[in-house]
Amino acid sequence: MVSGSPPAGASRDEANALALERLVRSDPVLVDVRPAGEVVPGLAPNTVLTSGPPHPFTAYDDGQRDAIVYGAMYEGLASDYDDGVRKFESGELRVGACHDYGCIGSLAGIYTPSMPVFVVENATYGNRGYCNFYEGESHRRLNYGCYGEDVRRNLLFIQDVLAPAIGEAVRRAGGIPLKPIMRRALHMGDELHSRNTAATLLFTRELFPHLLELGDREAVRKTLAFMKDADYFFLRLSMASGKVTADAAHGIPGSSLVSAMTMSCRGAAIRVSGLGNRWFEGPHPSLQGKLFEGYTLEDTAWMGGESLINETVGLGGFAQAAAFPLQAYQGGSPEAMIRMNLEMYEITVGEHPEFHIPYFGYRGTPVGIDVFKVVETGITPCVDAGLAGRDGGQIGAGVLRIPIECFRDAAAAYEEVHGPVRVPAEHERTAP
Amino acid sequence: MVSGSPPAGASRDEANALALERLVRSDPVLVDVRPAGEVVPGLAPNTVLTSGPPHPFTAYDDGQRDAIVYGAMYEGLASDYDDGVRKFESGELRVGACHDYGCIGSLAGIYTPSMPVFVVENATYGNRGYCNFYEGESHRRLNYGCYGEDVRRNLLFIQDVLAPAIGEAVRRAGGIPLKPIMRRALHMGDELHSRNTAATLLFTRELFPHLLELGDREAVRKTLAFMKDADYFFLRLSMASGKVTADAAHGIPGSSLVSAMTMSCRGAAIRVSGLGNRWFEGPHPSLQGKLFEGYTLEDTAWMGGESLINETVGLGGFAQAAAFPLQAYQGGSPEAMIRMNLEMYEITVGEHPEFHIPYFGYRGTPVGIDVFKVVETGITPCVDAGLAGRDGGQIGAGVLRIPIECFRDAAAAYEEVHGPVRVPAEHERTAP
Repeated sequence: MVSGSPPAGASRDEANALALERLVRSDPVLVDVRPAGEVVPGLAPNTVLTSGPPHPFTAYDDGQRDAIVYGAMYEGLASDYDDGVRKFESGELRVGACHDYGCIGSLAGIYTPSMPVFVVENATYGNRGYCNFYEGESHRRLNYGCYGEDVRRNLLFIQDVLAPAIGEAVRRAGGIPLKPIMRRALHMGDELHSRNTAATLLFTRELFPHLLELGDREAVRKTLAFMKDADYFFLRLSMASGKVTADAAHGIPGSSLVSAMTMSCRGAAIRVSGLGNRWFEGPHPSLQGKLFEGYTLEDTAWMGGESLINETVGLGGFAQAAAFPLQAYQGGSPEAMIRMNLEMYEITVGEHPEFHIPYFGYRGTPVGIDVFKVVETGITPCVDAGLAGRDGGQIGAGVLRIPIECFRDAAAAYEEVHGPVRVPAEHERTAP
Repeated sequence: MVSGSPPAGASRDEANALALERLVRSDPVLVDVRPAGEVVPGLAPNTVLTSGPPHPFTAYDDGQRDAIVYGAMYEGLASDYDDGVRKFESGELRVGACHDYGCIGSLAGIYTPSMPVFVVENATYGNRGYCNFYEGESHRRLNYGCYGEDVRRNLLFIQDVLAPAIGEAVRRAGGIPLKPIMRRALHMGDELHSRNTAATLLFTRELFPHLLELGDREAVRKTLAFMKDADYFFLRLSMASGKVTADAAHGIPGSSLVSAMTMSCRGAAIRVSGLGNRWFEGPHPSLQGKLFEGYTLEDTAWMGGESLINETVGLGGFAQAAAFPLQAYQGGSPEAMIRMNLEMYEITVGEHPEFHIPYFGYRGTPVGIDVFKVVETGITPCVDAGLAGRDGGQIGAGVLRIPIECFRDAAAAYEEVHGPVRVPAEHERTAP
């Protein structure tokens, strides 16, 4: 979080304008790749992080609970599943919430101290954020609640080969600015949540000249081969970017803009810039999606997810009209994507000056979700997301809507502090 | 050209179906990079190639004439401009038409024997085609009728550094299939004529593991730096692909499909699959465009262009709804791009089974221009293109329409051979 306040006595509009400015002026730069335990402030060796608001271990069930315990097993903190459960229940092992550690979780969002993380710095405001690595194209991944020799091997490859090579290249490059990559990827069919194909390529190209100089040629070959097959690779970088961007807009007194949205096995939750670190929790999102062969929507399971930080900063579902190729992955039609994307302008306070949608004549993406606009219009944020299955693994992708309850509770909490917020009548809103 | 005929007594529809099959089943693979003089069949050491139907030297004027003479100067065949003119006029130097040599010219389309070319082979039908290299981002380029120390230095860099490095990488790779790159680039904002950003990136990624193995590290660094700044790089590969594809569909008796469209300083011209090597010439295209700062449409000049081979095979203007980001480069609105793209379905006989437009719900691009459909509907092919200025150099980009006269003449020539072609009445065409 970044210190900064609107002028004393500032209105909600003024506070939101300041939060918006921080959302759009943030400048995420990838500065390093390091083991989480070395760089994530306060991450103790006995701690596993996961997606969603902080909860005690016993609050997690099904796939998310599995993923947490599997994380402990991967880290060597538990000899088997039962041992892991016992140690979490006894307090010997601890579970933490990613957001509390400057991290941001993809799906179950499991972080252990030895896992490498991207270190992203906000060059404008100085704050840092972290995200770990995409596990590759296998549907069986730890962050989708799976574990086994295959999952472990992938994670070790990332830890021992991929992350050191990329880390050295990044340090040789003196850091890699991520905003120019994201800006450009939006003109190449990405919305930077469920489609990261162009951004991954652009990032790879930034790395090339530096990978060329590395001594371990075999590691470079393996790194390139992995990244070539991993169109999703950049997602973790857009998420770390989203985290440092949203964090910079958090903590502005009087602002009613959303500064984080998250999910766990217990439901969705949002945080509001001017309302401290309180999470406003609601039920699970509603869901439309496209399932991989052999699955139906009934097979989906909720095990967390914080990649919707990208929607919080004007990407993903808020930029889906930049990414018509997404149809093939998450279903829907171009018409539906355009309609949903346009709706997002109804619940935001600004248009991004650097992230543009070519199909909208290069209009800026909608950014800065105001909880009062959501409550007033009944339009909830739409989120592009991967879908997990009951038995773990990815089984599809789709569009979620974050439940209105989160926004109603947040609006009520805001009014408790600041008094009633006058919502403009319909005829005032539609006037030019 | 590829041998192959429809069954004896086949109808126009059957001949067109065969030509269409060849257009969509062609499989261009980059197999080598070599000096034109080594690989282009029949290219004599005293010959300069240029865009458009074959003409005597005296038929070329202004920018195209300049470009031809500059080509001779670059090749060391002329000591200065006047010397070059004298030698072309005396017959000591000769000018040839790119298409007659298996080559395909970008704008003025100048080829000299020492210039490196991409060697592209049609893996399905066995024919080969050639295209030389993009000169880089400078607006002053030989193919835009410019010459000087700057232009010469760029061309020498391509010849001495870039082409050898890329050639070695391509040979190490055992050839690089281009169709998968083009297929994918259409989902990443390219239409592969005026936008090649994604294809260039995808091609670079294919090269990289092989560049990594090259001995001359400095050449690799320079090659990567050049390609990073050259979003247009892949155009020459899509053009060579278009050439081997269209050539495979040429020479099918009874087919009325267009197998090439070209431009020179004298006007536009088309060739038809079933009508041999005759060019049907017409006036210059009509033009809508966006000029670089300081220019107007009155400053544009015609000095040739054969990149519209890409439209001939279902790309470029025929896929522009895949490339809304083009607005920023060549003007127009998404609505206009969609409308023009849809029009192209009216004058073609098929939809490409592998080239898809995400905005049209992954509908295949319109492919196989039938001269009779053009004449009947009055809809002329639209072409995305760079624009040259009166004083040389690129001054903008825009959308051209190839004049109807070319198609009328071709249709008349077809009917002279095959008798009257019955054009379906309006109510027959619009019936389901």
